[in-house]
Amino acid sequence: MRKLRYGMVGGGRDAFIGAVHRKAVALDGQAELVAGALSSSPDKAKASGRELGLPDARNYGSWEEMLEAELRLPAQERIDFVSIVTPNHLHYPVAKAFAEAGIHVVCDKPLVHNSEQAHDLIQVVERSGVVFAVTYNYTGYPMVKQARDMVKNGVLGPLRKVIVEYNQGWLATQLEASHQKQAEWRTDPARSGIAGAVGDIGSHAENLAATITGLELEQICADLTTFVPGRRLDDDGNLLLRFVGGAKGLLWCSQVEIGAENDLRIRIFGEKGSLTWHQEDPNVLIHDSLEGPRQVLTRGNAYLCPAAQRATRLPTGHPEAFIEAFANVYLGAMEAIRAKQEGRALGENEGDFPTVYDGARGVYFIEKTVESSRSDQKWTEARWKRP
Amino acid sequence: MRKLRYGMVGGGRDAFIGAVHRKAVALDGQAELVAGALSSSPDKAKASGRELGLPDARNYGSWEEMLEAELRLPAQERIDFVSIVTPNHLHYPVAKAFAEAGIHVVCDKPLVHNSEQAHDLIQVVERSGVVFAVTYNYTGYPMVKQARDMVKNGVLGPLRKVIVEYNQGWLATQLEASHQKQAEWRTDPARSGIAGAVGDIGSHAENLAATITGLELEQICADLTTFVPGRRLDDDGNLLLRFVGGAKGLLWCSQVEIGAENDLRIRIFGEKGSLTWHQEDPNVLIHDSLEGPRQVLTRGNAYLCPAAQRATRLPTGHPEAFIEAFANVYLGAMEAIRAKQEGRALGENEGDFPTVYDGARGVYFIEKTVESSRSDQKWTEARWKRP
Amino acid sequence: MRKLRYGMVGGGRDAFIGAVHRKAVALDGQAELVAGALSSSPDKAKASGRELGLPDARNYGSWEEMLEAELRLPAQERIDFVSIVTPNHLHYPVAKAFAEAGIHVVCDKPLVHNSEQAHDLIQVVERSGVVFAVTYNYTGYPMVKQARDMVKNGVLGPLRKVIVEYNQGWLATQLEASHQKQAEWRTDPARSGIAGAVGDIGSHAENLAATITGLELEQICADLTTFVPGRRLDDDGNLLLRFVGGAKGLLWCSQVEIGAENDLRIRIFGEKGSLTWHQEDPNVLIHDSLEGPRQVLTRGNAYLCPAAQRATRLPTGHPEAFIEAFANVYLGAMEAIRAKQEGRALGENEGDFPTVYDGARGVYFIEKTVESSRSDQKWTEARWKRP
Amino acid sequence: MRKLRYGMVGGGRDAFIGAVHRKAVALDGQAELVAGALSSSPDKAKASGRELGLPDARNYGSWEEMLEAELRLPAQERIDFVSIVTPNHLHYPVAKAFAEAGIHVVCDKPLVHNSEQAHDLIQVVERSGVVFAVTYNYTGYPMVKQARDMVKNGVLGPLRKVIVEYNQGWLATQLEASHQKQAEWRTDPARSGIAGAVGDIGSHAENLAATITGLELEQICADLTTFVPGRRLDDDGNLLLRFVGGAKGLLWCSQVEIGAENDLRIRIFGEKGSLTWHQEDPNVLIHDSLEGPRQVLTRGNAYLCPAAQRATRLPTGHPEAFIEAFANVYLGAMEAIRAKQEGRALGENEGDFPTVYDGARGVYFIEKTVESSRSDQKWTEARWKRP
Repeated sequence: MRKLRYGMVGGGRDAFIGAVHRKAVALDGQAELVAGALSSSPDKAKASGRELGLPDARNYGSWEEMLEAELRLPAQERIDFVSIVTPNHLHYPVAKAFAEAGIHVVCDKPLVHNSEQAHDLIQVVERSGVVFAVTYNYTGYPMVKQARDMVKNGVLGPLRKVIVEYNQGWLATQLEASHQKQAEWRTDPARSGIAGAVGDIGSHAENLAATITGLELEQICADLTTFVPGRRLDDDGNLLLRFVGGAKGLLWCSQVEIGAENDLRIRIFGEKGSLTWHQEDPNVLIHDSLEGPRQVLTRGNAYLCPAAQRATRLPTGHPEAFIEAFANVYLGAMEAIRAKQEGRALGENEGDFPTVYDGARGVYFIEKTVESSRSDQKWTEARWKRP
Repeated sequence: MRKLRYGMVGGGRDAFIGAVHRKAVALDGQAELVAGALSSSPDKAKASGRELGLPDARNYGSWEEMLEAELRLPAQERIDFVSIVTPNHLHYPVAKAFAEAGIHVVCDKPLVHNSEQAHDLIQVVERSGVVFAVTYNYTGYPMVKQARDMVKNGVLGPLRKVIVEYNQGWLATQLEASHQKQAEWRTDPARSGIAGAVGDIGSHAENLAATITGLELEQICADLTTFVPGRRLDDDGNLLLRFVGGAKGLLWCSQVEIGAENDLRIRIFGEKGSLTWHQEDPNVLIHDSLEGPRQVLTRGNAYLCPAAQRATRLPTGHPEAFIEAFANVYLGAMEAIRAKQEGRALGENEGDFPTVYDGARGVYFIEKTVESSRSDQKWTEARWKRP
Repeated sequence: MRKLRYGMVGGGRDAFIGAVHRKAVALDGQAELVAGALSSSPDKAKASGRELGLPDARNYGSWEEMLEAELRLPAQERIDFVSIVTPNHLHYPVAKAFAEAGIHVVCDKPLVHNSEQAHDLIQVVERSGVVFAVTYNYTGYPMVKQARDMVKNGVLGPLRKVIVEYNQGWLATQLEASHQKQAEWRTDPARSGIAGAVGDIGSHAENLAATITGLELEQICADLTTFVPGRRLDDDGNLLLRFVGGAKGLLWCSQVEIGAENDLRIRIFGEKGSLTWHQEDPNVLIHDSLEGPRQVLTRGNAYLCPAAQRATRLPTGHPEAFIEAFANVYLGAMEAIRAKQEGRALGENEGDFPTVYDGARGVYFIEKTVESSRSDQKWTEARWKRP
Repeated sequence: MRKLRYGMVGGGRDAFIGAVHRKAVALDGQAELVAGALSSSPDKAKASGRELGLPDARNYGSWEEMLEAELRLPAQERIDFVSIVTPNHLHYPVAKAFAEAGIHVVCDKPLVHNSEQAHDLIQVVERSGVVFAVTYNYTGYPMVKQARDMVKNGVLGPLRKVIVEYNQGWLATQLEASHQKQAEWRTDPARSGIAGAVGDIGSHAENLAATITGLELEQICADLTTFVPGRRLDDDGNLLLRFVGGAKGLLWCSQVEIGAENDLRIRIFGEKGSLTWHQEDPNVLIHDSLEGPRQVLTRGNAYLCPAAQRATRLPTGHPEAFIEAFANVYLGAMEAIRAKQEGRALGENEGDFPTVYDGARGVYFIEKTVESSRSDQKWTEARWKRP
C-alpha cells in the first residue's frame, strides 16, 4: 500500500492542534507530510517547515503558493490531500480553494464561520467530488462507534433523552490577556467566529450526540454567558434540546469550570436502556438496561461491534487515547481517498469519518445557539436541512 | 438527656419513607416513638402500630384522633413532636393542625401543594413558635455541610455556575399500573401535587443547590416531559437557571433514566475553584482550584469544618450513608426542640436543619417550574420572597 | 414481636466501638439496652451509663456485678443477651461467664487471646447452648452475602486465587504516645494480644475471605513488621496463602499505609469468573466472567440472592453502609436468640451471623501468622480443625 | 534534526508488540524504519516487510543477513539502531551481535534468558559503547516519572512499603492450545524462558517498583503456580519482598485473573505520605500525606516535575496512553543515540530510558523468583549486583 502524500496549512511553531494532526497521521504510517504552509507569516511558516524536515521546495510561505505549486507538480508527486489546521477564519478560503482544485481535504472544526460559507463549501465538494473530512476527533474513539452501533441496533429502544456536556476550565481567568496563543485566537471573534466555548467545544458536543444517536435537533433554548471580564465571546453555554421525534436533552459547554480538564461526556437514555461515555476514560462504555446489572464494556474485546474492533490497535487494558481516536478519523478519510483513487466503492465500516455535512450542521448549530441565546423566545427552530 | 417522645402520621405497612424516618430517629437514641396514626385507613393504621409495638392507647386510627388525644395528655407524657410521612396531599392539614396546637413538626417534602398553603403554614409556625423541620435529608450529609462551609467562606470565590442533577430510572416503565405503592401515589396528581419528578426529586435538587450555595434563583426556563404513556405527571424535567447576582445553572431531574438509581449530584463553580459532590458516594467531596492538584476531601477528617465534624458518627473509611444523613436532620430539629423547651438559644452549629422556609421556597420552585414549562416565554421569574 | 433486652460490657465514654454496637442495635428497634457495665473503672462505668439513660439499678460498676444481679432478676426482666465490646483481653472471661450462665452473647473480635481460650469457650457454648455471635461486621454487608452466594453456586467455578487486603494508615505515627485511647490499647500486648494489625484488622480479612469463599487455609507464610519506632506490636503484615484444594492467595493488613482509611478489599478468582468487593464502596460488587462485559451488581436490586435482599433496608442508590452491616450481624443473632427462646428451628437465610467457630478460627489464624512470621520455614501449617 | 534510521528484528505478521514499537517510533517522527528481518521464517519476513513498504534491498530474510548487509552500507545509510522485538529466546544472540557491531540497540523485555547471558551482554555493551535500551515501557508514562521524582525528593519520607501488582486474565484458559501466537510462545519454555507470568509481566512489576522507588530488593519469598492444566510455565506468582534498608513489599503477577485486562498498579508508602498509580488510568497519580486531603495529580499540569512535563504531548484531559509511554522510551534512547553521535553529554532529563542494567536486574529477579518458589527456605537472597 503506497503512502499517501499530504500537505498541511497551519500548524506551525506554538500551534497545538497541528502537531496532534501530524502525530495522528504518523501513527499508522499511511501518509507522509511532504508539503506545508505552516503559518500565515511566511517566515514563521518556513522556519516551522524546516524544523519538520520539509524539503525547501515544498516548504511554502503561503497556502496560495502551496496550492499553485502543488498543482504544477505531476499527479504522482502532488499531495493527495491537504490538512487544514489554521484558526477557524481560514478554514473557508483554504478548504474551498483546495477542494475546487480537486485536492482532498481534512479540515479542523468548526468548519467555517457561517452557514452561507458552509453551503457554498458543500456545493464545491459535491461538484469536485473530493473527499472532505472534518476532524470531529471524538467520534474516532472505538467506544463511541460501539455506542453508535448499539443505538442503531435498537439496544436502547426508542431514545428519550440525551445529556451531553463538555466541561473545561482553562479559560477561567483572562488567559488571552497574557497572549497565550490558544486562548488568544479562540476568544477573538475575527478568528474564532461568532461563538467562543460554543464554537470551540459545544460543536464537539453537538457532533458527538448526533453521531451516536442519529437524532436530529428540532428546537433549542440557549443561554450563553461571558463570565470573564474583558472577554469578547461566550465562555459558557447551557442549552435545552428538543429532538425530532420527541426526545429531549441538555447540552452544555464551558471553559470556566475550574477543575474540568477536557471533560466531554454523554449519556443516552432510551426506553430499554442507556449508555454513558466519558472522553477522559475513553476505553470504557457503560450500558444499563431495564433488568440485570450494569455492564461495563471495554475496548478491545471480542464482544464489540466490527466498527469498534476495526478502530482498535492494542489489546484490552493497554489504553488507547486521544491520538488514536484522531488517527481513526484520518484512517477513515484515507480509506475514502484510496477508494476514490482506485475507483472502487468503500467496504462495510470503511470510510467512517465526519464529513462536510457534519461540519455544515455544526456551523448551523453554532448560529442557532447564538440566535437562541439572544432571543426572548423560548424555542428556536434548529433543524438543519442538508442542502 | 431525656429521650424526646414523638408520634408519626403515615408510614404504615408498605410505606417506604416512614420506616426510614423511624430508623433515622432510632439510630441516635434521642427520641422514642410513642404514638402513631400510621395510615389513612384506621384498620391498617392500627395493625401497623401493633407491629411497631405502639401501646393500644396511643395507636390511633386517624391523625385527628391522635392530635386530640395527645393534647388531652399531661405535657410530660404528650409527644414532643410529630413526624409527618404521608403522601404529599396530607402534609398541609396535618402539619397545620399540629403546629397550631403547639406541637413541633418534622414533615417530609415537598412541604405542601401550593404557595398559598405554604404561606399559611409559615404564618401558623411563626404564630405558634413551634420548631418546624422539613426532611430535605440530603442536606444532612457531612460533606454537604462541608461544601456549604467552603462556599460561605469564599473558598470558591464568587460563584459562576451550578449544575445540579437528580437522575433516577425506576419509573422508566409504567410501574404505577402494577399498583406498586410508591409509584402509584407519586404519579397521582391528587396525592402528589402538580408535579411528578420535579416535585419528588427536583425539589431535592433545588434545595441542595440553595443550601450549599446560598444563591437565590432569579429566573428559570423549564421543559417538563411525560415520557411514559399513560402517566399523569411529568417524569422528566430540564431547567436552565439564572441566579440573583449573575450566576447561571442547569438543573434536571428524571425518573426515566434507566440505570440511574438515586443519582443526585452537584457541581459548583466559582472564580477561584469548584466543588463536586455525589449522593451515591456521599463521604467524598472533590475540590478543585485554579492552581494545584485536585483535592479529595473525605468524611471524618480533622481538616473538615465543625458542622461537618459534628454530623459524623464514625471514623474515616467506615462509610456513613443515607440513614445517618437523615438522622442528622432529626438531630438538628431535636436540638432546636430541646433548646426551645429549655428556653435557651441554640449554640453555633446547633439546630442545623431545613425549615418551613426551605419547604415554602421548594413549593414555589415547583409551581414556577410547571408554569415555565407551560410558557412560551423564555424566562419565568422565580425569585422567592420570604413572606 | 417483643423487643429483646440486652446489656453491654465495655463501650463507655471515649470508646469507639461500643457506640457503634448500640447504634447498630437501635437502628432496627428489635432490642433495647437495659443494663451495662460500661467500663472497667466503676466510676466511669456508672457515669457512662447515666449518660446513656440506664436506670441506676442496672447501671453496674463491673461485669461481675452485672452478671450476678441480672441472674437474680426474673427471666422476663433479665437481659436476653450481652454485648461485649471491651478491649480484647476481657473478651474471654466475660464471654465465658455469661455463656456459662446461659445468657446469649454477642462479642467483638478477635474473640480471645489464644486457641486454648477459644476452645474452652467453644466447649462452654456447646454445653450451655447459648447463641454466640462474633461481630465480624463486614460479613453483614448485603454484597458480601451476594458474593458468598455466587461462589457457593459455582458462578466462578472452582476457585484459584484470593487477594484480600486491609489497608489503614491511622497508626503511621506513634499515635499511642499521645494516649489516644484506640491507639493505646490496640498497641498494648496485654490488652490487644500477641498481634497488632494482624489481630485488629488482619483477622477481619481472614474472616471475610473464609466467609465468601468457604475455602480453608492450609499453609501460610507471613512477614510481620513494626514500622513505627517504639511500637510494641506489628503494624503491618504480609502473607502468602495456600488453601486446601490448591487455591492460592495473598493477604495483607497494614496500619501504616498513609492515605488508606478503612480500605478492606477482596478479589476472588475462579476458573469461570471473578468477584471484587471494596468495603469503602460497599453497595457494589463487580463480577467478571470469561466472556461478555464486566457486570456491576448493586445493592437493592431484584437480581440479587435472597440473603442479600433480606440484608437490605433501602432502595437502590440510597446508600447503606457500615452501621447497617453491623446491624445485620445483630439481626442474625437476634433471630437465632428468638428461635431458641421459641424452641423453633431457623428458617432459610435466618440466623446469618459469624459464630464462636469463626471466632476461634480467627484466633488460630492470628497465632499461626505470628508463628510463621517468626519462622525461617517457608510454610506454616494453618488448617484449623473445629474441635 | 535528521531522522534516525532503524531496522527491526521480529515483529512480522501476527506479531503484537512489533507493531506497537513501530507506531511508538512513528508517533514523533524522529526515526524511520529502513530495514527489517521481521520473522524467523525468511518468507514470512519478506512478506511482512513488503507490507510495511520496506525496500527489497533491505527487507532481509534473517537477522544475520541484515546485520551483515547493513554493515556493508556506508555509515550515512546504515541503520542507527536496531529494534529487537522477537520472542525472548532470540534477544540474546541478536542483541549481542548488533551491539558488538557497534549498532545501538532497543530490545524488548525480559532482556535474556539468564544472568550469564545478561552479564555477557553488559560486557559487550560496555565494550562497544552502544546505547542499549530495554523497553520497560510502563516507565515511560509521565505520571511514573512524576512518582519517581516525588520519591527522590523525599515527598514520601523514607519508604516503608511497596505493593506492586500486575493482573491479567487472558490466559485463564489454555489459549495456547488454540495456537494463538501470543499465548503459544509465551507459554513455551524454549522461547519464553524459565518463567511464564513472572517473566512476561512480573518483570514489568519489578522494574516499575525499582524505577519509582530506587529501592533494591534484598530478599524475596515466592510462590509460583501453574493453574491451567497442560500449561508448561507458571501463570501466577505471589511474592513477599524485603528491600535493602528495611522496606517491605508484595509483588504479584497473574495471567489467570479473569476480568483483569492489563491491570498493573503500584502503591508506595513512606513515613510521610504515599503514592498510587494504575496503568489503566495512566494520566492520574494519587498522593496522600499525613495531613490534608488526598491529592489527585493529572498529566499535563504545570505543577508536575520537568521529567513528567517533557514526557507529555497533549494538554490535560486529552488522554495519553500506552503508545505515548512506549514512544517515550524510544525518545529517550534516541536522545542518547544522537548525543553519542554528536559527541556531547546528555542534558538534564535527557536520555531517560531503561538500560541494559535494568534488563539484567530483571533477568536476575526472574531467576531468583523461580529459585525461591522451588525452595523450602523462606527467604531467598535477591540483591542484584551490577557487574
